[in-house]
Amino acid sequence: MICEIISIGDEILIGQIVNTNSVFISKELNKIGVEVVKITSISDKEKTIIDSLDLAKKNSDLIIMTGGLGPTNDDITKHALCKYFGDSLEENRKVLKNIEKIFEKYVSTPMSKKNRDQSLVPSKAKILNNSYGTAPGLWFTKDNISFISLPGVPFEMKEILINQVIPELRKKSNRIILINKTILTYGLGESFISEKIKDWEKNLPFNMKLAYLPNLGRVRLRLSIRGKNRDLLNNKINNQIKKLYSLIGDIIVGIEGETSIEQELLKKFKKNKITLSLAESCTGGNIAARITKIPGSSVYYKGGIIPYNTKIKQEILKIPVELINDFSVVSQEVAKVMALRTKSMFKSNISLAVTGNAGPSKGDSEEPIGTVYICIVNGKKVINYKFNYGKHRERVIEKAVNKSLELLLLEVSG
Amino acid sequence: MICEIISIGDEILIGQIVNTNSVFISKELNKIGVEVVKITSISDKEKTIIDSLDLAKKNSDLIIMTGGLGPTNDDITKHALCKYFGDSLEENRKVLKNIEKIFEKYVSTPMSKKNRDQSLVPSKAKILNNSYGTAPGLWFTKDNISFISLPGVPFEMKEILINQVIPELRKKSNRIILINKTILTYGLGESFISEKIKDWEKNLPFNMKLAYLPNLGRVRLRLSIRGKNRDLLNNKINNQIKKLYSLIGDIIVGIEGETSIEQELLKKFKKNKITLSLAESCTGGNIAARITKIPGSSVYYKGGIIPYNTKIKQEILKIPVELINDFSVVSQEVAKVMALRTKSMFKSNISLAVTGNAGPSKGDSEEPIGTVYICIVNGKKVINYKFNYGKHRERVIEKAVNKSLELLLLEVSG
Repeated sequence: MICEIISIGDEILIGQIVNTNSVFISKELNKIGVEVVKITSISDKEKTIIDSLDLAKKNSDLIIMTGGLGPTNDDITKHALCKYFGDSLEENRKVLKNIEKIFEKYVSTPMSKKNRDQSLVPSKAKILNNSYGTAPGLWFTKDNISFISLPGVPFEMKEILINQVIPELRKKSNRIILINKTILTYGLGESFISEKIKDWEKNLPFNMKLAYLPNLGRVRLRLSIRGKNRDLLNNKINNQIKKLYSLIGDIIVGIEGETSIEQELLKKFKKNKITLSLAESCTGGNIAARITKIPGSSVYYKGGIIPYNTKIKQEILKIPVELINDFSVVSQEVAKVMALRTKSMFKSNISLAVTGNAGPSKGDSEEPIGTVYICIVNGKKVINYKFNYGKHRERVIEKAVNKSLELLLLEVSG
Repeated sequence: MICEIISIGDEILIGQIVNTNSVFISKELNKIGVEVVKITSISDKEKTIIDSLDLAKKNSDLIIMTGGLGPTNDDITKHALCKYFGDSLEENRKVLKNIEKIFEKYVSTPMSKKNRDQSLVPSKAKILNNSYGTAPGLWFTKDNISFISLPGVPFEMKEILINQVIPELRKKSNRIILINKTILTYGLGESFISEKIKDWEKNLPFNMKLAYLPNLGRVRLRLSIRGKNRDLLNNKINNQIKKLYSLIGDIIVGIEGETSIEQELLKKFKKNKITLSLAESCTGGNIAARITKIPGSSVYYKGGIIPYNTKIKQEILKIPVELINDFSVVSQEVAKVMALRTKSMFKSNISLAVTGNAGPSKGDSEEPIGTVYICIVNGKKVINYKFNYGKHRERVIEKAVNKSLELLLLEVSG
């Protein structure tokens, strides 16, 4: 089954909201083997809606619309659909009962005429009950093509999609399914990875596709395959991933959805029964924020200090003022003492410290903007790193965070 | 000028990523009076790309594509454009120099052939320099229609759009423009706000639109107006905002884009010449991360401690073990001592402490999941707050962070 998703409403076109509805719908459709070939966002004008339906049905046998089903004047999807299918509105008693129920349960104000008018629905459509809102979903079928219109409110849409649309589509789906797995890597750019795996890539089965997804110094590799037998497809992908491990296993974190670098850190630290503390200057708490996003991280992350101000580095972390004067606050030497002091302060097995210039101005150091020193102290071992991440403040911070997590993983994996 | 945005790449169609690029682009285009009438996400197949361009040019005189310009085999936008415009690739020395510069600056490994091939660009396109990456943007013009192809990596796309595309488009655009300003509020729900401003809302000029945008306990109010004269439209909106201030000025942070709660904090602390320190337990560095995102925040933010582990609270912050035993680690009493100790440790004027259960399990406390205690110490004044933010870990953390920033702003504004 081939699908186009159409999101109706100006808020997406003026960039006010992110289209998360289509993300949810495509994910669910892909799971049951429906291929989404196009996602379109359009304005809530009658002609635009009708033109878009005309276009979509040329390439798709399933069209899912969201938005424009509400009670206010700018909600016109229902009327556009009536025009498109030569249909008219009629009161539906079941829908009316549902609206009354919703008002009884969730709304303190009395029902207005506009709310009651929500029970006027196109006579030819199959009605999809909305347990959380007053606008029902609508399912038209014409020339073997399904046209499904869902409310734009995310949790209303999700409930109708999951409980009423997906089960019905699953029956119709021709069972060609798409399986994809995304391999998380770290520490190497996409062109280098592609160089290392070019022979493997060339020899991928004809129905398997590889995509490189780079972002802020990290590359994800997505393998996808289409076919009928889920177990067989999974086997095929897993075999290719096994081969990939033999080529670039040193930079693979794991499979997206199954794990993340933060989760791998938790696993490794927990397994080795070791603890971590952090001293974050230029990253200002971002490494800790990433680590503590994972439930259970308190098992290894004891805590950290953010010595943002230079004086704090001296007073709380007892960095000698001469060291700062001699080497500057952004230096390998200071990073090292930061890590050592934090380790003994927090009594952790491993400590990581970061100091750098995120910019845009130089701050208390002569090092160029973008310079970041990272130091890891593991027991008695001290490892120093120096990087430059350019002049864009947010990027410097994010790259320093990513790199710190990677270096920690490297350290506890080694 | 009428625009269609086309996002190229399977990651959107399978629901792997949210299409944030198109959000950014439409926002910027709307600012300069370019109307985005359609946003399309398509697969990275040559025929699909070409068909989509053919369709788009029927209704638009500006087509902005993102994605598919990278160095790997799945990046085919450049080739599709060559085919569409009957063009061919040739080496561009400026692009090559830029690639070499990028490698010198940010990449430790040597340039591969694939990287070098990034300097092969369609001969008919105007080249848009990419300061952060190796793939330049491409700008074709045909039949008075602009076809602009930008890299899919968000910060590369943004830099090229803002510095090269928008200034050029601004010269061409002379249509009806849309102005919108979004007022950031905090601390009050939408129905309360709407009650307070209902008379004002009723008397808005007929061509001005108001939208309520609630999210995670914060409401944004979007005012929009269409017309020809930018200054006049701006005046009209500003007049309405002035009236709004007289009604709900106490909960207005400022205008989205012009300021943020983090920027207001910097302004207020700087003006009052006071400093801040933080003790973050359940928020794990997220408040500090938000504060330090703003350049110059070191002028007031001295630093903080993340006493994630209960023992750390005892050992470093010297929270008496009896206090923890009597009241539990998630309590008003512990939050208070955390704030007091952090204040004296960091010698700051104000200190804020957070302790809570973000879930999913209860951790070292008997308080229900979602309970968050915040304590602010300002000089000798101690203010305690208690909240419950439900059972979703990431939401609890985000709401606690938002609330902490709001309470700090309230404190320094009062």
